[in-house]
Amino acid sequence: MPGAAMTDFASRLVAATRAIGPLCVGIDPHPGRVPALFGGDTPDGLARWGEAIVEQVAGRAGVLKPQVGLFERLGPDGMRALQRVNDAAKAAGLIVITDAKRGDIGSTAEGYAQAYLGKNSPFASDAVTVNPYMGMDTLEPFLAAAEANGKGVVVLARTSNPGSADFQTQDMGGAPLYARVVEALQPAIERLTGASGWSSLMLVAGATGPDEARRLRALAPSCLMLVPGYGAQGSGAADALAGFVRRGNHLEGGVVSASRSVNFPEGAAQAGDLGAWQSIIAEAIAAAQDDLTSLSGVTDRAGTLTGS
Amino acid sequence: MPGAAMTDFASRLVAATRAIGPLCVGIDPHPGRVPALFGGDTPDGLARWGEAIVEQVAGRAGVLKPQVGLFERLGPDGMRALQRVNDAAKAAGLIVITDAKRGDIGSTAEGYAQAYLGKNSPFASDAVTVNPYMGMDTLEPFLAAAEANGKGVVVLARTSNPGSADFQTQDMGGAPLYARVVEALQPAIERLTGASGWSSLMLVAGATGPDEARRLRALAPSCLMLVPGYGAQGSGAADALAGFVRRGNHLEGGVVSASRSVNFPEGAAQAGDLGAWQSIIAEAIAAAQDDLTSLSGVTDRAGTLTGS
Repeated sequence: MPGAAMTDFASRLVAATRAIGPLCVGIDPHPGRVPALFGGDTPDGLARWGEAIVEQVAGRAGVLKPQVGLFERLGPDGMRALQRVNDAAKAAGLIVITDAKRGDIGSTAEGYAQAYLGKNSPFASDAVTVNPYMGMDTLEPFLAAAEANGKGVVVLARTSNPGSADFQTQDMGGAPLYARVVEALQPAIERLTGASGWSSLMLVAGATGPDEARRLRALAPSCLMLVPGYGAQGSGAADALAGFVRRGNHLEGGVVSASRSVNFPEGAAQAGDLGAWQSIIAEAIAAAQDDLTSLSGVTDRAGTLTGS
Repeated sequence: MPGAAMTDFASRLVAATRAIGPLCVGIDPHPGRVPALFGGDTPDGLARWGEAIVEQVAGRAGVLKPQVGLFERLGPDGMRALQRVNDAAKAAGLIVITDAKRGDIGSTAEGYAQAYLGKNSPFASDAVTVNPYMGMDTLEPFLAAAEANGKGVVVLARTSNPGSADFQTQDMGGAPLYARVVEALQPAIERLTGASGWSSLMLVAGATGPDEARRLRALAPSCLMLVPGYGAQGSGAADALAGFVRRGNHLEGGVVSASRSVNFPEGAAQAGDLGAWQSIIAEAIAAAQDDLTSLSGVTDRAGTLTGS
């Protein structure tokens, strides 16, 4: 039933942030950091730990962002762990943005789109992150899959790392490269703009560059932003929300991701049992969501603004 | 025994091209193209087909380039098939450049480096392709792993697809972006330059841009090039070898990759049995290698030039 009852990605994402806040919880199983409680740094350990995080996210944040490279390092079994985590997140009703940063010529990009954005993709996702360096034709298979299946495409514009200054913010004929990327994306942004007024083509806009986020907002008023760099990477809620806009009584326009601060908060590694670990993780997620919603506000399901 | 008897990637690659020619055989299992003979479009089919290609490559070309996205589309089991193909290639003595086009912030890039460039990586590779858009800090973990383990890093500079004109060839303060990338890479290029005089930091320079390849050669005299776009993408041997340099009595300076023309040559899909399929594949590989060496020449193990 193509299109029938399908809600587009942007609408789903915005509804989730309105209801519960803009926090997106990363799943970043860094080497040696997964507690022995779950099996440690093994594929099964990663899967069980990720599933346990998902359990704590449900009800406290609406969006999950698994980091593929930290699963892929363990090979095919690591990718199986990613699959289990994504499946658990979908079963829990979360929106999953798989952070893969893929990009390749058309026929290969179709492979990646099939891996992440198909109706029955092995790595069940609502959206996937992609790299624009190779040009617009390399993004097309992702856009087509997103359009067909109600999914999203998250394009790297201005990332949060120091190296974003190497090329992304360098001038290319009167505007920085990241702005040129967004210019080139305009037809795609429009094409993926749905009933909510937001586009399912989303942009990465690092919290470490609030000025760039504001510029991106001006360039692409209908683009949701995925904002990394909040928390462990050093930026506060105000910088993270720089590209958001006021809609009624709250700020909206994307999600702010936190990983280390909610994956490995203080005390979690020393938790003696599952219950203690769960409390620590739940508290860290709630604290991050509260920090963000204290500025952005949320509209609860009854339409009432509730800050924290 | 770190470093002891380890030959660097560039030296191994150049030795292989001197001995047998510059052809790099892609392994691109496009949807629906793997013959039923091997199990068709299933993970096991991909693995068996890839292993069978490897068997035909051995002795006819020195370098293999599996395309990750076309395995990843089948999920964890597809990645298992990639692992089997890479293992078979290493067992056959081939040099493996895994075409992953990865790139992410440092801590995640470490994960990808561990996946492809470690001493015991799950996806055994001699080198991996990476995307420079996110900046130099995101390439560092790949460079460090390459340096420690005698591996190579292949950075996208000017790709072969039409979209390479969108950003890569656009002017950034007096030089195209791809040239800016190579400028920024200079310290890394030097750092990875080994005994052969060639650097284990390799550049992607599409056969569809011979002028750009010559410019890249001038900018980075010690960089080997990985040249896609030869054959099925329309460029002939002369354009593909545009960035190569004369060394004694032959041309060297990289590898030229062919995929469709040697994976799915005319008649292969209709081959009635394994023997017939093997002959067709062997002939297609030999024809591509001959086409390239008729221009580049090769130096056989005794040091004598042999064209074809």
